Amino acid sequence: MLKQRGLLIVLSGPSGVGKGTVRSAIFEDTNCDYVYSVSATTRERRPGELEGVDYFFMSRESFEDLIAQEALLEYAEYVGNYYGTPLASIEENLAQGRDVFLEIEVQGARKVREKIPEGIFIFLAPPSLNELESRLTDRGTDSKEVIARRMNKAKEEIELMRHYDYVVVNDEISEAVDEINAIIKSEHLRVERVMHSIQADINAYFEEEAKQS
Amino acid sequence: MLKQRGLLIVLSGPSGVGKGTVRSAIFEDTNCDYVYSVSATTRERRPGELEGVDYFFMSRESFEDLIAQEALLEYAEYVGNYYGTPLASIEENLAQGRDVFLEIEVQGARKVREKIPEGIFIFLAPPSLNELESRLTDRGTDSKEVIARRMNKAKEEIELMRHYDYVVVNDEISEAVDEINAIIKSEHLRVERVMHSIQADINAYFEEEAKQS
Repeated sequence: MLKQRGLLIVLSGPSGVGKGTVRSAIFEDTNCDYVYSVSATTRERRPGELEGVDYFFMSRESFEDLIAQEALLEYAEYVGNYYGTPLASIEENLAQGRDVFLEIEVQGARKVREKIPEGIFIFLAPPSLNELESRLTDRGTDSKEVIARRMNKAKEEIELMRHYDYVVVNDEISEAVDEINAIIKSEHLRVERVMHSIQADINAYFEEEAKQS
Repeated sequence: MLKQRGLLIVLSGPSGVGKGTVRSAIFEDTNCDYVYSVSATTRERRPGELEGVDYFFMSRESFEDLIAQEALLEYAEYVGNYYGTPLASIEENLAQGRDVFLEIEVQGARKVREKIPEGIFIFLAPPSLNELESRLTDRGTDSKEVIARRMNKAKEEIELMRHYDYVVVNDEISEAVDEINAIIKSEHLRVERVMHSIQADINAYFEEEAKQS
């Protein structure tokens, strides 16, 4: 089989839905062979987050340098902080047949869709808005007012799901991980990605038959 | 979550590719909850095949009665034998949210696509045409001439794969089974199948909020 081009997989969803947790769980699996594209951000590091693993944490000044250098696939400002996707290495990995995994905010995902429409866009949704509200409250990092603002934002963001290809509900993390892996596996099997190499095999077989007869 | 309508899954591919073997392996898994739609055929039963499990084996006369009664979703004649899909119970299962699995010949799959375009069409391909030729030879049921005829037929059939949604290569059976299960799992997560129930949850949450304030 001819080597397929890698897939760009974009995982997004409203703030607080657990994108980071699900992404970590996917990459903890030793069989996982996606390349994670680490985002850059100016937001503060949360306990347990690692520089260069979860994010590239940086100052506003450094981030604005990346913008000026056009070194970002997309970036957005969200609740006072910048988030962005460094371009470096994405195209190279895709060309070499490696799947590249992005975990980004909804605004950013929208911009990536414009630039790379053939990407696989997965929307991570909360089991319910009541559950999302509980999770934001339990995280303990936001005031009541911020949470109310986030819930309104979440409504707007969830209504953007129609621009995605798939929706995964983050109820049980392990189930969400299985579902995302199933999506990626099945996307590699889409006829337009496989047809070319099978047709090449048919041509080779009948050329050989024609020679022998 | 609202109950989703079941998916019609159509597994097809050239003669000798191992459709029946893969289908059996899928249904041997005790976690499998697809409904298998048993085909009717006038071809002779092969060793190990069971009436009502692998096929409904019947005479040409009985088969032609089903045609006359319009009791088949599709039927086709292939290498001198009839193959067809009894309509009974398919629509009922789909409406109740159960996935219905068909394993049929390529001609039949084409007709099902015309009638049920929203079905999930999976093409089972041989690892290579050389491998297909070996399998037909090893089966020992066909003469050299029949095999040559089947290989030409296979070429035509494989070139029909462009009308399918997915291609699964039947190299290792367990891998083909995993891939088919991944396709079905991911198809249930497509945004157009999930969006409706998530939008209903958003509406309910904000109606409740509006009442409380």
